[in-house]
Amino acid sequence: MKPATARLLIWCPDSTGIIAAATGFLAEHHANILEADQHSDPADGAFCMRLEFESEGMDLSREEFVEAWKPVAQRFAMDWRIAYSTDRKRMAIMVSKQDHCLQDLLYRQRCGELSVDVPLVVSNHPDWSDYLEPQGITSFTLPITKSNKDKQEQRLLQLLEEYRIDFVVLARYMQILTSTVVDRLPSRIINIHHSFLPAFAGGRPYHQAHKRGVKVVGATAHYVTTDLDAGPIIAQDTVRINHRDTVDDLVRKGRDLERTVLASAVRLHVEDKILVHQNRTIVFD
Amino acid sequence: MKPATARLLIWCPDSTGIIAAATGFLAEHHANILEADQHSDPADGAFCMRLEFESEGMDLSREEFVEAWKPVAQRFAMDWRIAYSTDRKRMAIMVSKQDHCLQDLLYRQRCGELSVDVPLVVSNHPDWSDYLEPQGITSFTLPITKSNKDKQEQRLLQLLEEYRIDFVVLARYMQILTSTVVDRLPSRIINIHHSFLPAFAGGRPYHQAHKRGVKVVGATAHYVTTDLDAGPIIAQDTVRINHRDTVDDLVRKGRDLERTVLASAVRLHVEDKILVHQNRTIVFD
Amino acid sequence: MKPATARLLIWCPDSTGIIAAATGFLAEHHANILEADQHSDPADGAFCMRLEFESEGMDLSREEFVEAWKPVAQRFAMDWRIAYSTDRKRMAIMVSKQDHCLQDLLYRQRCGELSVDVPLVVSNHPDWSDYLEPQGITSFTLPITKSNKDKQEQRLLQLLEEYRIDFVVLARYMQILTSTVVDRLPSRIINIHHSFLPAFAGGRPYHQAHKRGVKVVGATAHYVTTDLDAGPIIAQDTVRINHRDTVDDLVRKGRDLERTVLASAVRLHVEDKILVHQNRTIVFD
Amino acid sequence: MKPATARLLIWCPDSTGIIAAATGFLAEHHANILEADQHSDPADGAFCMRLEFESEGMDLSREEFVEAWKPVAQRFAMDWRIAYSTDRKRMAIMVSKQDHCLQDLLYRQRCGELSVDVPLVVSNHPDWSDYLEPQGITSFTLPITKSNKDKQEQRLLQLLEEYRIDFVVLARYMQILTSTVVDRLPSRIINIHHSFLPAFAGGRPYHQAHKRGVKVVGATAHYVTTDLDAGPIIAQDTVRINHRDTVDDLVRKGRDLERTVLASAVRLHVEDKILVHQNRTIVFD
Repeated sequence: MKPATARLLIWCPDSTGIIAAATGFLAEHHANILEADQHSDPADGAFCMRLEFESEGMDLSREEFVEAWKPVAQRFAMDWRIAYSTDRKRMAIMVSKQDHCLQDLLYRQRCGELSVDVPLVVSNHPDWSDYLEPQGITSFTLPITKSNKDKQEQRLLQLLEEYRIDFVVLARYMQILTSTVVDRLPSRIINIHHSFLPAFAGGRPYHQAHKRGVKVVGATAHYVTTDLDAGPIIAQDTVRINHRDTVDDLVRKGRDLERTVLASAVRLHVEDKILVHQNRTIVFD
Repeated sequence: MKPATARLLIWCPDSTGIIAAATGFLAEHHANILEADQHSDPADGAFCMRLEFESEGMDLSREEFVEAWKPVAQRFAMDWRIAYSTDRKRMAIMVSKQDHCLQDLLYRQRCGELSVDVPLVVSNHPDWSDYLEPQGITSFTLPITKSNKDKQEQRLLQLLEEYRIDFVVLARYMQILTSTVVDRLPSRIINIHHSFLPAFAGGRPYHQAHKRGVKVVGATAHYVTTDLDAGPIIAQDTVRINHRDTVDDLVRKGRDLERTVLASAVRLHVEDKILVHQNRTIVFD
Repeated sequence: MKPATARLLIWCPDSTGIIAAATGFLAEHHANILEADQHSDPADGAFCMRLEFESEGMDLSREEFVEAWKPVAQRFAMDWRIAYSTDRKRMAIMVSKQDHCLQDLLYRQRCGELSVDVPLVVSNHPDWSDYLEPQGITSFTLPITKSNKDKQEQRLLQLLEEYRIDFVVLARYMQILTSTVVDRLPSRIINIHHSFLPAFAGGRPYHQAHKRGVKVVGATAHYVTTDLDAGPIIAQDTVRINHRDTVDDLVRKGRDLERTVLASAVRLHVEDKILVHQNRTIVFD
Repeated sequence: MKPATARLLIWCPDSTGIIAAATGFLAEHHANILEADQHSDPADGAFCMRLEFESEGMDLSREEFVEAWKPVAQRFAMDWRIAYSTDRKRMAIMVSKQDHCLQDLLYRQRCGELSVDVPLVVSNHPDWSDYLEPQGITSFTLPITKSNKDKQEQRLLQLLEEYRIDFVVLARYMQILTSTVVDRLPSRIINIHHSFLPAFAGGRPYHQAHKRGVKVVGATAHYVTTDLDAGPIIAQDTVRINHRDTVDDLVRKGRDLERTVLASAVRLHVEDKILVHQNRTIVFD
């Protein structure tokens, strides 16, 4: 059994003594550090750190931690957040017709690879309840038309609240979410795009890639912002192709990439290993 | 010792019997086929084939081959060309300040990996003669300014002719060649671009990549057309990066990619393994 | 819709005129060749070829093909076989406790990536029927002990015959099949081993890899022979690891490799793209 | 310009407060930490850390550092070492007939990628002085026979001392060093082996790989121990091959791997990013 841990994420202007202060605080309160990862950006003087420590041996309750930590945070003008491994995050999955990412995420969740709960799936078109119900997952179909988009997004926000969703994964969900939804979930919506962004943003990337005659195709998992396919990139990977590959072959090869790249991004998010800084991600892995 | 070979490249509308006719012709003339590679594009009905065969056992001289082959070619409305391994291609390298690709190509040539002659190097700025002369390579410096570009390109064309150059490799040559040069050497100028095109075309791709926060960087070798960074792609590869990598790190990691991707494209060109069809390459490898 | 095709696989001593004879035969009988792939081994003088052609336009029935082809085959002392895409192969899957490869293969079959039927699953321990029955797949549990191994292998052979199985996939099946079974299915049992063979053959390869401190782990799909983990390799891939990865992390990273490598090998087998020659595979892909 | 830095490497039994004590010490002495990297091995309770900090702002001289640090080290029973970026390491390269790794390392050194001095090259057979002398590198030829091996190794040790060599790189040096040399340079001799160890240890790995029919080949950089090809692995990589690749092709593809894998290992060593623990490496990268 892995021990119960807390993950403390910090970002602030760089200066001497931050690591000493933070790790000194934890030592003083008997927290054994399991992982310490730090990054200083020489270009803009930002300091970022992730500390994962055993939460059980500490002499502070969660509330006491917040109070005791405050002076340290103030001294260095820190932004910070803490997450506990025992608070399993609640993930909603949104999906359209293709289910390879949906199936893959649920498999990884079932076999323990992703420490996350999946109470909710939302689809814009097919009804996935026959597949999901036996697994104890509630699903809703919210078809989108030009005229009902606003209403359906309101309904979606309602569902996310009702099911106490922490973050949303767009598992090949083919509708664009508007700022109505996106602004409510900053750095909490993960999308998989089937190209190595920024190449082939927008629709039908495999057709674009085939037409251009590239020799690699890729997949990109990123946080969703209101700027289409331009949010902070979490994970990317590529695979070689050649002239024999038809668009169908790209789709097939891409499926394997999409699911591994998306799963990797979800795992990093679930384990609180990502900081977003100036539209880029710091990934402590 | 590898045997002397001929490489026959064919492209024509697809129909039944092309392979039989071509390989039947070769069998009839006692040519032992070493490699037969074929590609039919279901989308546009094009047929492409590369046949490599031992040229020594044949009962046809080069001139006789052309005459004897003509009826076969006409029957299927073939475009075709033949190249002989004993005719070593003559390659010119163009370079600016960075020499990693130049050095790498010359090393591969010396150790026999590239069966090619390198009689000529042209630089737009630094003088590489101290390095090149001991290797028996003539080099010229043709600095480019706004006002002299046309004159220098004329001079370049002269040199290419004088040194009987078959194809040109832009080994991190940082000037843009105009149609004056490009139109004279269709599918015979190979460039290395330091990004996975079409992402980050144009200048300073590593800066662009760093700014966008991608998790892979790449390199692309392509034939040069008058459409900047948009010619047919021959070879591409990528390497993973992370948030710790500065622009300098990308430059370092990119150097390794650039030289292997460029060398791979040059080798394919030298061995007559590339056909260009509708701005895409068929690579028989 | 893809057209119905036939795949003709040939191996024989190399000589001039084989390709001409084979493709001439097909042209004569109005078979349009879609893919022609050939390999001559300079070391041992073996010639191998795979021809895929549209089977519908031909003027020969299956029986007539065999008769008409015989003289060509005899002339070059060919070993050969032909397979028709309309004869969907029947695949049995054998599995133990871990189901990631089982699930993955079935997903690929359902979504059309693998043109194969799966009538039968055999497990040595857990009962997978709750999962398989809704998909219309019959499953049997054949637990293996020292004393019953021979009896259970006889039972397995019976099942393979009863369900008219063409080939068997060991999808992380943790028992060793004896020659009783293996000799009956030469080049028709595919195993996935969780290391880059020949490194870490035998049991617990991830533990071995962790202990040795390697920086990559791999997976290998191979045909099963009576020589443990030493049969002809069909597909391999590797993934980078580092000192932070525990054995559990290797298991997790390895799962992704295992399923893609195994799926790739199964696809190649299903599409008749593999020839075995002197314990090595020729993979026409 | 990068700032002058010191790298402090620590390993000791894990306990609470080590990071706090070490970083507190540095903060107290005004050392700005640029990189902090830590690893706790849950299996054996070892704690490892690398701290890189600006050495110029510190209020301690090198000698004062050692004295001041001693109590911290004793408190946690630390093994530790410190290295200063201004002390450029002195690297000797040993080589036989193949020079691709030699050339590559020297190129990387010249272009600033490797912050290292190369005063000495030792070859067991060809004389590389024509190539090395113009670069200001002294080279010696120490041919090895059965009868002179001991004498030549003594001579080698003399040269290493005379040229004040910090570490040795075997850049495709084909002789086996005996314990006479190896025991004198623990974790200070880096070898490149042309396979993904532990597969194909010993001689002619590309021939072994070809015979086994693997679908990937690899290269491994490792510290040399007296146990042949079994020392701690620093870096590994692999590349795909197929049935068309002859042994010569493996040699060609392998060359690219060998030089990048070796260069990567040398860079890690030069930048003090490697700890050896129980025949495995902790690589802080």
